[in-house]
Amino acid sequence: MNLDKLRINGARLQQSLEKMAQIGATPGGGVQRLALSDEDKKARDLFVHWLKEIDCEVTIDQMGNIFGRRAGKNRNLAPVMSGSHIDSQPKGGRFDGILGVMSALEVLRTLHENNVETQRDIVIVDWTNEEGSRFAPAMVSSGVWVGKLDLEWAYARQDINGKKQGEELARIGYKGELPAKSFPIHAYYECHIEQGPQLEKKGKVIGAPKGVLCLHWYDIRLKGTANQVGPTPMAGRNDCLLAAAEMIQVVNKVAHIKGDMVATVGELHNHPNSRNIIPDGVHFTVDIRSWEDEHAIDAWEMMKLEFEAIANRHGTPIDMEITWRVKRAPFDEELVYNVLEASEKLGYSSLRMVSGAGHDASYINQIAPAAMIFIPSKGGRSHVEVEESSWEDCSKGANVLLQCILKSAMQA
Amino acid sequence: MNLDKLRINGARLQQSLEKMAQIGATPGGGVQRLALSDEDKKARDLFVHWLKEIDCEVTIDQMGNIFGRRAGKNRNLAPVMSGSHIDSQPKGGRFDGILGVMSALEVLRTLHENNVETQRDIVIVDWTNEEGSRFAPAMVSSGVWVGKLDLEWAYARQDINGKKQGEELARIGYKGELPAKSFPIHAYYECHIEQGPQLEKKGKVIGAPKGVLCLHWYDIRLKGTANQVGPTPMAGRNDCLLAAAEMIQVVNKVAHIKGDMVATVGELHNHPNSRNIIPDGVHFTVDIRSWEDEHAIDAWEMMKLEFEAIANRHGTPIDMEITWRVKRAPFDEELVYNVLEASEKLGYSSLRMVSGAGHDASYINQIAPAAMIFIPSKGGRSHVEVEESSWEDCSKGANVLLQCILKSAMQA
Repeated sequence: MNLDKLRINGARLQQSLEKMAQIGATPGGGVQRLALSDEDKKARDLFVHWLKEIDCEVTIDQMGNIFGRRAGKNRNLAPVMSGSHIDSQPKGGRFDGILGVMSALEVLRTLHENNVETQRDIVIVDWTNEEGSRFAPAMVSSGVWVGKLDLEWAYARQDINGKKQGEELARIGYKGELPAKSFPIHAYYECHIEQGPQLEKKGKVIGAPKGVLCLHWYDIRLKGTANQVGPTPMAGRNDCLLAAAEMIQVVNKVAHIKGDMVATVGELHNHPNSRNIIPDGVHFTVDIRSWEDEHAIDAWEMMKLEFEAIANRHGTPIDMEITWRVKRAPFDEELVYNVLEASEKLGYSSLRMVSGAGHDASYINQIAPAAMIFIPSKGGRSHVEVEESSWEDCSKGANVLLQCILKSAMQA
Repeated sequence: MNLDKLRINGARLQQSLEKMAQIGATPGGGVQRLALSDEDKKARDLFVHWLKEIDCEVTIDQMGNIFGRRAGKNRNLAPVMSGSHIDSQPKGGRFDGILGVMSALEVLRTLHENNVETQRDIVIVDWTNEEGSRFAPAMVSSGVWVGKLDLEWAYARQDINGKKQGEELARIGYKGELPAKSFPIHAYYECHIEQGPQLEKKGKVIGAPKGVLCLHWYDIRLKGTANQVGPTPMAGRNDCLLAAAEMIQVVNKVAHIKGDMVATVGELHNHPNSRNIIPDGVHFTVDIRSWEDEHAIDAWEMMKLEFEAIANRHGTPIDMEITWRVKRAPFDEELVYNVLEASEKLGYSSLRMVSGAGHDASYINQIAPAAMIFIPSKGGRSHVEVEESSWEDCSKGANVLLQCILKSAMQA
């Protein structure tokens, strides 16, 4: 058979996604399937059941990562891998993560029913706790798997109720025996919703990110002088919320200087946070991302100078901490090309772009060639109940994934 | 004897204040004596003991207000009243409130040891829970006493552990039988630390506030669009923390337009308050105070227009609520004059000023002639452990109080 003509079953993919969306469905039309919750377990069980239906060999590693392996002709060759995550944000959407697992499953189902034999094994994977919203940090299990994070440290992470990640893995029956340790991978593809507005705005169907933006995190702490607001004249106040307000504007202003940069203050804590006391403590965060690490560093240097001047003017001592800096991660050029080529052959418009968000693919990219396939997010919305992508675009993403997996898995 | 020559005993006043500062003393040199706590009870017991030592008739009303009455010649005349509060802020200072009670006590002790007979009774008072930091609102018991707040409502107020104010009054043994209901008062004087920097800055000893500033509270709520920060370009964001930051600057700018106005954003809540999600909900407060109610209203109208424009520009729908508006409260002109005259006769420099903070005197002012006597706060600091006033200034404040009380209590 001509494998170029092979297509996944869009209706079946929709059914899989709809079935998964029932597990942890929220009244607002979204999904709440927190990592290692009862909902996560239920979705995992269903996923494992589906893998066994198509004769995949299922293994669970120490981090609860689920691998479903479909045998190829030459079992000595490194396999092609594809997947994403089953867990969701609290009040998250029906596509983030699960699309990457269900589209890979749909690819395997298509190969299974058409008796397609590949040269290499194909491994489908569900990475435990990608979101990090119950147990921080995010992408913890792909991180452990590639050797960047420590297993015992990951086990010890606690949720807000003090439950440990390792204990919760055992509780839901997904603390496997297999070492959470990478094995050679020939190629890794992850299909995912864009979680941004670019594809929709530009009227494109498939996004081929050339890599993930650099990610720089900072923590800013200001000290002011608490006083009763009534008897304290405006002149001579050391109001650190007022100083922080100026700084937030600076972050926004600097972000606009370079094209693809984004800079955000998402978190702010004000002390004592009482309506009639001048704030004497503010802690806020800055998140800067750019394709050019240099631009992000330059932006920070500019912000830093302005922050210092503002703090001086208000008499509010400032402490600035570099919390985390991750360099940009370019994906494998050949695999990115495969995504663009498959889109073209399938007649889908495509866009070379960047990924602003981190994904499990970012970690896998550190040990193996990796690439991602993005499909449009309606209104660019994600991590919310109204997160949506069309069934048609889901199908198209899965078809691109099918062709990419076939191309890599047929390589001797 | 020539009563104009009568002086309080500064060393004894200092001892009383130091003794009280031991009850609930904090490691940082301040005091934590929350309303109706064990510390409050201990301080009350000592106060009652001291009142009885000088033959005062002690009564406790239903709100736990403690009255110590020293008989005058003509018991049918309305008494002169003086006092303040024994409770403190959490990690508060050693002078706020307690100075007004101890200086009134010192005045009575001075009259007692000099066998001074006044025309009218003199009543010294400790108002329960002036601070409102354990049970909101502040000044609750003077409010009930003048009939502006309801007794049962006050009883039902809860602290963060769910304990009711009424139950805690009973627990510490200060839920009295006497109705918490005002009786005729000839004059009310309250000696208090300034809690602001004016006296210190201008090198004056006694402040005679002509009244309390108006107080207007607003609650502003903004809605934004939550999105992951990485994939969401700067253009087209609806970041409501960024919008709020602009509004905070507006509050500060407008406050500077009129001389004695202060305007403050003391409280801000950000949602979801996560470093990698664009904020979709912000709630902040605005506190505006001025001697001229009109100025405060004008300032709000200006802010409102600018807030609306900012919210429009950011696409962050805004809701603005008028939470509380209290008009300015001018004190009794004759009593304020008494404070200035007594200061002059005693050779203390004085300042006509306004009070930016509310006090129990604000409520009493609604049913009887009232005035306050301010002494300097070092660095203008208050509601903090480092709150401080000199012993000399405390003495001077008490001497002014003595002369004012004598003047009013001698009136037939």
